[in-house]
Amino acid sequence: MHHHAMEACIQACLDCHKTCLATIGHCLSMGGHHAEASHIRIMMDCAQICAVSADFMIRGSDHHAHVCRECADICRACEQSCANHPGADDAMRACAEACRRCAEECAKMAA
Amino acid sequence: MHHHAMEACIQACLDCHKTCLATIGHCLSMGGHHAEASHIRIMMDCAQICAVSADFMIRGSDHHAHVCRECADICRACEQSCANHPGADDAMRACAEACRRCAEECAKMAA
Amino acid sequence: MHHHAMEACIQACLDCHKTCLATIGHCLSMGGHHAEASHIRIMMDCAQICAVSADFMIRGSDHHAHVCRECADICRACEQSCANHPGADDAMRACAEACRRCAEECAKMAA
Amino acid sequence: MHHHAMEACIQACLDCHKTCLATIGHCLSMGGHHAEASHIRIMMDCAQICAVSADFMIRGSDHHAHVCRECADICRACEQSCANHPGADDAMRACAEACRRCAEECAKMAA
Repeated sequence: MHHHAMEACIQACLDCHKTCLATIGHCLSMGGHHAEASHIRIMMDCAQICAVSADFMIRGSDHHAHVCRECADICRACEQSCANHPGADDAMRACAEACRRCAEECAKMAA
Repeated sequence: MHHHAMEACIQACLDCHKTCLATIGHCLSMGGHHAEASHIRIMMDCAQICAVSADFMIRGSDHHAHVCRECADICRACEQSCANHPGADDAMRACAEACRRCAEECAKMAA
Repeated sequence: MHHHAMEACIQACLDCHKTCLATIGHCLSMGGHHAEASHIRIMMDCAQICAVSADFMIRGSDHHAHVCRECADICRACEQSCANHPGADDAMRACAEACRRCAEECAKMAA
Repeated sequence: MHHHAMEACIQACLDCHKTCLATIGHCLSMGGHHAEASHIRIMMDCAQICAVSADFMIRGSDHHAHVCRECADICRACEQSCANHPGADDAMRACAEACRRCAEECAKMAA
């Protein structure tokens, strides 16, 4: 494992955490189907697992690869929920992009 | 400080964390004004600060009294948001009650 | 999935979170090889993933089974670190037992 | 409140979170009085409250000012623990500096 790759992954996780948490507020403010339970829930899942993946890497945990693998899966599901949403707007597309990048970096760590 | 009082406060914080997190899902499922941004946000605030207060007490941190004081304030705001909500139902009244108990226990720790 | 089994798992996760976090303080106070980095780190990993598994179940997340599977693995590693530690005392044996129970409940959810 | 100041504070909180969590591992690896319970505990407190302060700001919570005030206090205590430690080395001085900057940014938000 290269230290540089891990640092990039930690940063991608923290970016995705921030973006998902901010997008939850955005979607709740939009209301209607932006605020549907399943969409908000996957963004809550993603914000939380990204923060946890970052922590496992920062701590140098032996278990970071498994947590990163799970994080990549959840990021991909969140990306889909944002990108394919019927009311997808700029904030949601930015969230989908943060999720895509984080999934990509976490998949490298999980390998 | 009595160990028994702290144990009761930790338990009240963990109960309030669980109840708020579950009630977020309930209110998002109900939709409409149950899912309005400010109501969901105060439940997210409350769920998070309750978990943190519990952790500060479990760790025996010197700073637990200040965190408990802040937790009591946020619990009271969440209690109001649930109890005074125009569509308050059984789940929201149960959440208000968990917040009220947690605020009461945290206020004892903060003294 | 039976609601009762999930409630038992949430409780086991919260118990294990509390026990690991308290045992970190205990082992740091004991010092010496109780405070060695790898032992403290696995208890930090375990305390964190248990809280997260509980949250995924409380939120009713689609991804809870995968997070529970990872939680079970980390609990088993933490159980080993506590039970097989050359200076294992009552607090560490209690931590190993909380980890064992949590791994067992999480394995049921992961199936 | 200026959006730019809040963004700087969020970044300072995330930096301090990362640095404290990494420094816990460093100090545990050094062992001896680097690993004493009170020093590790204040870094755990600081890592946690910094992540929470960031989240309250990212969510746009009404309560972020109070949480930032508490975060500033804990950062200052952690800065002292790192800077005044008899075995302070480069990693601990870097941690003290991250805590100092975070306390400064959080104090602005708390005003």
